[in-house]
Amino acid sequence: MTFDQKDYEIIELGKPEYDSPLNLSKVDDDNVANYVPDDERVLVNTSLRDLQESIKAGKEFLSFEKAGPREKLYFDPSKCRAGIVTCGGICPGINDVIRGVVMQLSYWYGVKSIYGFRYGYLGLLKESDLPPMILDPEIVAEIHEKGGTILGSSRGPQDVSKMVDRLMDFNINILFCIGGDGTLHGAEEITEEISRRGLKISLIGIPKTIDNDIIFLEKTFGFETAFSLAVDSIRVAHVEAKGFQNGVGLVKLMGRQSGYIAANAALASQEVNFCLIPELPFDLEGKNGLYAHLHHRLKKKQHAVIVVAEGAGQQYVSQNAVDASGNVKPGDIGLFLRDDLSRYFKGINFPINVRYLDPGYIIRGAKSLPSDSIFCTQLAQNAVHAGMAGKTGMLVGIWNNQFTHIPIKMAISKRKVLDPESMFWLNVLESTGQPMIMQNKTNPEYFD
Amino acid sequence: MTFDQKDYEIIELGKPEYDSPLNLSKVDDDNVANYVPDDERVLVNTSLRDLQESIKAGKEFLSFEKAGPREKLYFDPSKCRAGIVTCGGICPGINDVIRGVVMQLSYWYGVKSIYGFRYGYLGLLKESDLPPMILDPEIVAEIHEKGGTILGSSRGPQDVSKMVDRLMDFNINILFCIGGDGTLHGAEEITEEISRRGLKISLIGIPKTIDNDIIFLEKTFGFETAFSLAVDSIRVAHVEAKGFQNGVGLVKLMGRQSGYIAANAALASQEVNFCLIPELPFDLEGKNGLYAHLHHRLKKKQHAVIVVAEGAGQQYVSQNAVDASGNVKPGDIGLFLRDDLSRYFKGINFPINVRYLDPGYIIRGAKSLPSDSIFCTQLAQNAVHAGMAGKTGMLVGIWNNQFTHIPIKMAISKRKVLDPESMFWLNVLESTGQPMIMQNKTNPEYFD
Amino acid sequence: MTFDQKDYEIIELGKPEYDSPLNLSKVDDDNVANYVPDDERVLVNTSLRDLQESIKAGKEFLSFEKAGPREKLYFDPSKCRAGIVTCGGICPGINDVIRGVVMQLSYWYGVKSIYGFRYGYLGLLKESDLPPMILDPEIVAEIHEKGGTILGSSRGPQDVSKMVDRLMDFNINILFCIGGDGTLHGAEEITEEISRRGLKISLIGIPKTIDNDIIFLEKTFGFETAFSLAVDSIRVAHVEAKGFQNGVGLVKLMGRQSGYIAANAALASQEVNFCLIPELPFDLEGKNGLYAHLHHRLKKKQHAVIVVAEGAGQQYVSQNAVDASGNVKPGDIGLFLRDDLSRYFKGINFPINVRYLDPGYIIRGAKSLPSDSIFCTQLAQNAVHAGMAGKTGMLVGIWNNQFTHIPIKMAISKRKVLDPESMFWLNVLESTGQPMIMQNKTNPEYFD
Amino acid sequence: MTFDQKDYEIIELGKPEYDSPLNLSKVDDDNVANYVPDDERVLVNTSLRDLQESIKAGKEFLSFEKAGPREKLYFDPSKCRAGIVTCGGICPGINDVIRGVVMQLSYWYGVKSIYGFRYGYLGLLKESDLPPMILDPEIVAEIHEKGGTILGSSRGPQDVSKMVDRLMDFNINILFCIGGDGTLHGAEEITEEISRRGLKISLIGIPKTIDNDIIFLEKTFGFETAFSLAVDSIRVAHVEAKGFQNGVGLVKLMGRQSGYIAANAALASQEVNFCLIPELPFDLEGKNGLYAHLHHRLKKKQHAVIVVAEGAGQQYVSQNAVDASGNVKPGDIGLFLRDDLSRYFKGINFPINVRYLDPGYIIRGAKSLPSDSIFCTQLAQNAVHAGMAGKTGMLVGIWNNQFTHIPIKMAISKRKVLDPESMFWLNVLESTGQPMIMQNKTNPEYFD
Repeated sequence: MTFDQKDYEIIELGKPEYDSPLNLSKVDDDNVANYVPDDERVLVNTSLRDLQESIKAGKEFLSFEKAGPREKLYFDPSKCRAGIVTCGGICPGINDVIRGVVMQLSYWYGVKSIYGFRYGYLGLLKESDLPPMILDPEIVAEIHEKGGTILGSSRGPQDVSKMVDRLMDFNINILFCIGGDGTLHGAEEITEEISRRGLKISLIGIPKTIDNDIIFLEKTFGFETAFSLAVDSIRVAHVEAKGFQNGVGLVKLMGRQSGYIAANAALASQEVNFCLIPELPFDLEGKNGLYAHLHHRLKKKQHAVIVVAEGAGQQYVSQNAVDASGNVKPGDIGLFLRDDLSRYFKGINFPINVRYLDPGYIIRGAKSLPSDSIFCTQLAQNAVHAGMAGKTGMLVGIWNNQFTHIPIKMAISKRKVLDPESMFWLNVLESTGQPMIMQNKTNPEYFD
Repeated sequence: MTFDQKDYEIIELGKPEYDSPLNLSKVDDDNVANYVPDDERVLVNTSLRDLQESIKAGKEFLSFEKAGPREKLYFDPSKCRAGIVTCGGICPGINDVIRGVVMQLSYWYGVKSIYGFRYGYLGLLKESDLPPMILDPEIVAEIHEKGGTILGSSRGPQDVSKMVDRLMDFNINILFCIGGDGTLHGAEEITEEISRRGLKISLIGIPKTIDNDIIFLEKTFGFETAFSLAVDSIRVAHVEAKGFQNGVGLVKLMGRQSGYIAANAALASQEVNFCLIPELPFDLEGKNGLYAHLHHRLKKKQHAVIVVAEGAGQQYVSQNAVDASGNVKPGDIGLFLRDDLSRYFKGINFPINVRYLDPGYIIRGAKSLPSDSIFCTQLAQNAVHAGMAGKTGMLVGIWNNQFTHIPIKMAISKRKVLDPESMFWLNVLESTGQPMIMQNKTNPEYFD
Repeated sequence: MTFDQKDYEIIELGKPEYDSPLNLSKVDDDNVANYVPDDERVLVNTSLRDLQESIKAGKEFLSFEKAGPREKLYFDPSKCRAGIVTCGGICPGINDVIRGVVMQLSYWYGVKSIYGFRYGYLGLLKESDLPPMILDPEIVAEIHEKGGTILGSSRGPQDVSKMVDRLMDFNINILFCIGGDGTLHGAEEITEEISRRGLKISLIGIPKTIDNDIIFLEKTFGFETAFSLAVDSIRVAHVEAKGFQNGVGLVKLMGRQSGYIAANAALASQEVNFCLIPELPFDLEGKNGLYAHLHHRLKKKQHAVIVVAEGAGQQYVSQNAVDASGNVKPGDIGLFLRDDLSRYFKGINFPINVRYLDPGYIIRGAKSLPSDSIFCTQLAQNAVHAGMAGKTGMLVGIWNNQFTHIPIKMAISKRKVLDPESMFWLNVLESTGQPMIMQNKTNPEYFD
Repeated sequence: MTFDQKDYEIIELGKPEYDSPLNLSKVDDDNVANYVPDDERVLVNTSLRDLQESIKAGKEFLSFEKAGPREKLYFDPSKCRAGIVTCGGICPGINDVIRGVVMQLSYWYGVKSIYGFRYGYLGLLKESDLPPMILDPEIVAEIHEKGGTILGSSRGPQDVSKMVDRLMDFNINILFCIGGDGTLHGAEEITEEISRRGLKISLIGIPKTIDNDIIFLEKTFGFETAFSLAVDSIRVAHVEAKGFQNGVGLVKLMGRQSGYIAANAALASQEVNFCLIPELPFDLEGKNGLYAHLHHRLKKKQHAVIVVAEGAGQQYVSQNAVDASGNVKPGDIGLFLRDDLSRYFKGINFPINVRYLDPGYIIRGAKSLPSDSIFCTQLAQNAVHAGMAGKTGMLVGIWNNQFTHIPIKMAISKRKVLDPESMFWLNVLESTGQPMIMQNKTNPEYFD
């Protein structure tokens, strides 16, 4: 799937005509930031060679609209009413985002009515009988010091028409949707229904996926906190593995389709011998399978640490299930490996001691680390700028270290995955020392 | 089971005749500590009323021998050879103890030969082919900054006669055994075999049980670290519970026969609504059962947190299994409750969201917190004093905040359990607000 | 100064006649705690030898009244009005205590009016124009997750008569005073004024001193958190010291008159070479002075770590100043040593690199660690039991691991200090390896 | 100062002719990374508008050489001898870098001789009598778990000629220099001397500046850990400020010429009211000065938090001093403000309580957080690739999230500073709520 520049364009509700109350500068060198014009754009591709080829071929240079404060607003701040909803699983940083949106709306734009819908899209149904929280700076002042979401969340879609009815009931002008792939599909449908009804409601998505698997986003909030905390479990797995003869520490980490958390945690810890990710198939048995390499390692060092992303090795555990949000539910590769490792090594009369850790909830429920707090706050600040300017159907993202606007439609078109041929994955392999390929039939030249 | 004062007496290998090299003081008020004479003793019971009754009845006052440096040693430090062995599950602080023993032996007594036997009692078998580590101050200098045990461990007993052979092969004078109930049973047998053979080998136990369930010991090392770290999981369970409608955070903690970790973690976190311990039976269903009270709580507050010790509610999950150390292996009350809660509330058409956390390994593999590090070091220092003085078949313990000597035989005679009528458990109840009794048939006056 | 048993007796406002609403048990073996009668007492001294000598001499056995819930109350819970005030410097755990008092009063005794006076004794003056906070369970629910005090604090005494006027204005029945030595002197004066006026107001102190220097208390809250966090600074000092040639990490810790924090932190860290405390004088120069021993260490190892309590070595820096609470303000031994070390070693042409850390505020402003949280909660729970029973002029304390009642008068009669001849200090020396005495003129036999 | 594309070119010692032992792929889609050719380059500027203007003007597109493994090496790995030196102040992550270099050299290139020179450039002088450490994978295996540098460091330059003599004595082929601006100036001189002598020694710099102030580098290692840990001190300052009437928490953070740490920590904490950085002048007194705004804040909220970078407001404290590395030593703005704040507010009869924190050493001596560990490891891995390929006089850097090669000469040409007109600084202001300009004479329209 490829995209044209027009796919990168952001929809606007109409011409913004109100003056921004931010009082920024319009000249340079006065030590005050300037407004960001809509035609300020960030290149997608930073390869010199690709650029030169594009020029030669006369192709356009793909680019994202840059985020930031606009000089003119679509909504009159003094009358604007905003809503916030948080959906899907818990992830570090949601409260920072909620807080950032409320602070920015209140202090900088003077917005007075902010509703926090409860328990995800469920709270957007009248019949759920869940009145929204009224949010203001005092209520959110300290929420960033806790994990979770003060609004509550839920999984799964709801009736789009009823949700738009509810937005109308509350005269919402801007809805901030904090959620992942499923939520964003819902948000896209809500945007379409709003458009179908000719309403002037802006929908701004703030992407939440601990797995860091949304395309066109360099990173998502909560991800760095997640892999950082995962290191603690890897350290413990290492300690347990060394504590017993032929100890094997096995840590299952998040990552249904993308191995970013597993790979980053492995690289950060420097204590992982095998990192298994969804993007790279591996054999268990056979001369170049995982077990043979593990056996080799144990004979040499008496202990080993394995990190496995939950979506890795699905051919061994697939069960064709889906969760309430409609995402394919992976089979449990962690429990499978725990048992299958013991089975295999018992079979070859080489007893091992497996210690299995699954720190999922401990990571998801944590508060964000400082760098994620910064990121969350900046996402929130930029989401508010975009909403006030009347943009809609878009996400706030980051690309080449600059905040950008991305059409939701594009962001949900496919998942971002880790490229096994990337320098980053090579760095992981350089650190773990595992074979580049652990399959018996292919690429014999890379067998270790 | 009751004990006489003679049960409290410590066995000695013989009359200590070497001068201690510690160069302590023999007078007061010179700002230098004095040696501890053997007849310095710590009262067992500090109740004034019990004391007065004892006097009236002419009964003896039970007391422990106080630990500390002796003026005369049984072993010639310059020729003494020591061994260390760590057995059973991993627990915070083992490395602090190993380090403390090595430092004290080396720097203060000048002992030059210290052997670290590998992988528990297994390393005390010649046929295991596991040569011991040679330990010295440089090797152990930084091990206290890590969890686990640098010696490795294993579960289960080994042939006592072969283990004593091995001690003879290495000419060990003092063996330091770091381990829990099973280990101490083994240590007692080793002591008896040593005695049977007329050997002059001192065996000093340093009690290791994360559950804090050894009788005659106020506390055991690793326990405080354990309940402190458990608080992190309770915080997360609370966050997850609040994140979803009728969220129930369920945390399983260590404690096969004693609920100390669960009770302390509940009290420390201030976020637990129900704390279930092995010492106090509870019904699940019925008017005064756990589920009815939980239902009541959820209707009022939409979320709840439950902490369950692994040995609680065993009638629901008992499976008559034992682990390699011969301890009864509890059925998994955590997994049972996770599934049974969902079943029950589905049955009454009141859907709940259970989040289950089992932080066992994360806690066991952690490094010790500072107060535990102090305790470990002091246990080690006192263990060395006792060993050098020729005491044997004993544990180093703590009672009324003073370090004591306890016969192993006494310490393994029964488990220490939490008294549901104690002020401490009342403090826990005052904090959780759970009913004092959650049973349908008894004590109706305490129904809440 | 010695005390008779009558000094240990607790004053009561009158005969308690209301039934406790706690609904505890009056029989044993029903798994429900019993009320604590006033004649349940805890022995002060647990030495068998001292006991036997007392018996021989016909002396009484000193004992503390045990804390806990009483069957009869002095105040009618439904009408009782309570106040809380926090004074002096900030310390980990104050919010836990406030929370515990409010929770216990509200949930267990049904007290409805609880006032939190602002900014210490200042808020007890009408003219300060500081209205008290109205406290209830919802307001305090999460305050234990933060350091500091939600009530604010201040140093220094205020007019006692005016403070009692204020208590009368608010019809306060029980005042909980959380503070240290200065605060408790004030509390004692308030108690006397209350008594002089014939009022029925109970004053219950909850001792707060991060230095752990109140006599007749095994420990005070915040102390364990303090020395635990101090270890982080020692680790860093160690890292810095090792990072440069002849690096000296110097850490100043709290402890104006007592070296408990310095000694515990040194023992916990295992990385300190010299621990200097107020209780033990030391010379700087000369053959057996600190600098000579430090020089020796640096020549051998190229780095060293020194921990100094703020009250140590005052002869070198004394300035005869007092702070607003009337406590003698120590001269700054930390800054002095930082500069004087450089001066001395420059003088002997042996350049060193001093890194000086003063983590005072970072420690004071921290939240309590879990074991301190437990302790704070238990202090608060027992303080409420005592207040409701009509006791006054007393502190809640802990002795031999049991909660006790102590007359304030006794607790402020002198400071608790660390005994340099104790086993505990010996354990510290065994760990640091510093000479037992670092003075040139005395005790030549202990020179190292 | 501007640069031409030729300034971006990397010097090479000669034509690389040895085959890399990495066994990477030369085709796509085989799940194995490919070697990076020298002509793979990363665009410097990602602004679409700037690109279009360049095209219009016919200007070249500036780009960096991309880092990564080369197919051909300049040095024969089996004979290659490498050295590592760490200079300047301590900073989180140095040990990760040392470890990464040693592991990559040993495991992936088979380099057998790696020397760790001691105590910075000092250890490169023969007369310092400091033999280098022999480094191998076992020695460095666990060093990443500690702060500091196992090699030790020192400040200041040394005789370049003597240092090159020493490299020749040890037959060093590649020298890895880990250090900041001063170190890199030295490294540049060493490179020139090597070239002057016609030697074939590669010098690869790995930039170390906790301040994140090296130009052409998106970030430097240790920086994220630094601002993350600074948040802890800000939290405490906030707690202390709230604990007393008109409490002012004042935190001094690193940043001699650039306010990145202060700005990021302020944004991450969400608790800062005034963030003062070197890049933005501010008045103290007067209607639009800091003190007037602080007064306003205190009257409204009774407490405030100020973060000041050490290089901010130098006009108030300047002293024209330099440190041993030749860097201008800033006057102590932290101590100045602490005292001057008290003076000013006393003068207007509005007493305040200042709490001053200076967490410098605690931050510098910390171990790296996981994301910094990853970054350090990748820097090290890429530095080794570059060195083995025979590149020299260069730094490993990062730009647009890709690892790059940068000539040292360019990187030391000027400092990177925070642009007060950037979106990032706007985000900081949006969070603190401080006036955009705090000066009395200029830009009156931005007065708050």
